[in-house]
Amino acid sequence: MEATPHAAAEAALTEQVVARFADTPDPRLRALMQGLVRHLHAYVRECEPTEAEWFAAIQFLTDTGKMCDGLVRQEFILLSDTLGVSMLVDAINHRQSTGATETTVFGPFYIAGMPDRSAGENMALTPGTPALVHGRVFSADGTPLRGAVLDIWQTAENGMYSGQDTAQPTGNLRGRYRTDDEGDYAIRTIVPVSYPIPTDGPVGQMLTSTRRHPWRPAHLHFMIDASGHRRLVTHLFNQGDPYLDSDAVFGVKPSLQVAYEERPADHPLARRFGFDGPFREARYDFVLDPVPKAGD
Amino acid sequence: MEATPHAAAEAALTEQVVARFADTPDPRLRALMQGLVRHLHAYVRECEPTEAEWFAAIQFLTDTGKMCDGLVRQEFILLSDTLGVSMLVDAINHRQSTGATETTVFGPFYIAGMPDRSAGENMALTPGTPALVHGRVFSADGTPLRGAVLDIWQTAENGMYSGQDTAQPTGNLRGRYRTDDEGDYAIRTIVPVSYPIPTDGPVGQMLTSTRRHPWRPAHLHFMIDASGHRRLVTHLFNQGDPYLDSDAVFGVKPSLQVAYEERPADHPLARRFGFDGPFREARYDFVLDPVPKAGD
Ligand SMILES: [Fe+2]
Ligand SMILES: [Fe+2]
Repeated sequence: MEATPHAAAEAALTEQVVARFADTPDPRLRALMQGLVRHLHAYVRECEPTEAEWFAAIQFLTDTGKMCDGLVRQEFILLSDTLGVSMLVDAINHRQSTGATETTVFGPFYIAGMPDRSAGENMALTPGTPALVHGRVFSADGTPLRGAVLDIWQTAENGMYSGQDTAQPTGNLRGRYRTDDEGDYAIRTIVPVSYPIPTDGPVGQMLTSTRRHPWRPAHLHFMIDASGHRRLVTHLFNQGDPYLDSDAVFGVKPSLQVAYEERPADHPLARRFGFDGPFREARYDFVLDPVPKAGD
Repeated sequence: MEATPHAAAEAALTEQVVARFADTPDPRLRALMQGLVRHLHAYVRECEPTEAEWFAAIQFLTDTGKMCDGLVRQEFILLSDTLGVSMLVDAINHRQSTGATETTVFGPFYIAGMPDRSAGENMALTPGTPALVHGRVFSADGTPLRGAVLDIWQTAENGMYSGQDTAQPTGNLRGRYRTDDEGDYAIRTIVPVSYPIPTDGPVGQMLTSTRRHPWRPAHLHFMIDASGHRRLVTHLFNQGDPYLDSDAVFGVKPSLQVAYEERPADHPLARRFGFDGPFREARYDFVLDPVPKAGD
């Protein structure tokens, strides 16, 4: 341990700032702010930014805030995602889960209030490879969950979400499905495609200057709610996607991969779900964690 | 050392993100990004934010970016200042200085291109207690520096800077003075007052929820440039100000305090600088660091 006068003065500054938060009435906010100061100062002391680097960081954060706009452009979520912070927060908040489907990033593209859709309804209003995604929703003890709500979103073939791409019809490739009495759900859609996260903002500049690609492996987003259960936010990733090992936002988990298998036009599911040609079928069952009851 | 499966998985995620920056061509950018990921992840692992807390942080950063506007509202600088980061960056970048005047925060209120003013010119176009601030600018070896430029800014009596307060005339309490052949400078102005940093944005909310006051002790800003010398960014603080021990941005250093002494209307300096009544006098000499020559 070297204790130069400079190091001592710099450590004293950190403690002075930490002490300034001592009167925060909410103990949780106090801990969060004091921890932030300690870690932020530790970073500054270790990396020793020049004043020009500090100012570039201020400018980057400012530009990131300015880039956030309206419904589906949340550049700070993108930043958190591309720095792996979102997946870390996700991991920390799902340590206790046992047997439930794994979670992954929420991402910046969700839109609330999308259409309620009947079982097997086609949510794709734009072209693509026709697909059926279906399966069941269970509680951790194996009980099928009826009336579970599956809020779904995915990009069109052009790699953009409706809302983000204003040329797409409202509600395209989005919607809320419900499980039936047996816990079954069925979504008619198109096969998801890989897509780049938006690169026209500060996060895109960060990826470019660090030689990182912006691609995410193809996936379908799920947010599943069932009475008495913890909300599940996750994706299903296409098996075999070339970006599974290098997702720009670190969201991939092996248990969340699913195959889109080829099915002929005369497959029994074709008539039932109204496909008039060959299509793909992906099957996946979800398991939700019950919310602990008082006293557990 | 506990190595639970969760802790191991979370550490692996951090290393995966760090590795993703391995191809960054600029080694300095690589070190800054990898250090950021490590420290940010360490903070998240230690404080374990809930998803709601994470989202509140995203929203806070977004609002901070959106609050930045035009010339003199830079909410991210305010955030850096109020978290002590600006003073820490300042300290780290002035470790080598020996004998030079101490530095302090730049702050968000500087405006470039303000009027050139002659020695002793009054930069106060709004009322206040008349004051003369004068002294000399030296190099570290004691040589007086001629033609050094002192770029000055301070608030009006209402605690607001011109530009920030659009009711003030352009250039009010701002301007660029030069030292004469003996290295002397002289500024006619008003005695600075304590003022609160802007509290109508996210930083103000942070101060309120942590029971911190927003006040800065009264000060005059200096940015001094002289040929062959390192730029000096500092303040002179009013001796005796009630906020010297609790500056909202941690900028105070004992060596930067100066007394505004009472002088009668018939004081020899009154006629020289055009005071027609009693005034205050503050004297302060600045010392600049020479820029090392190649080979030093
Ligand atoms: Fe997505
Ligand atoms: Fe100031």
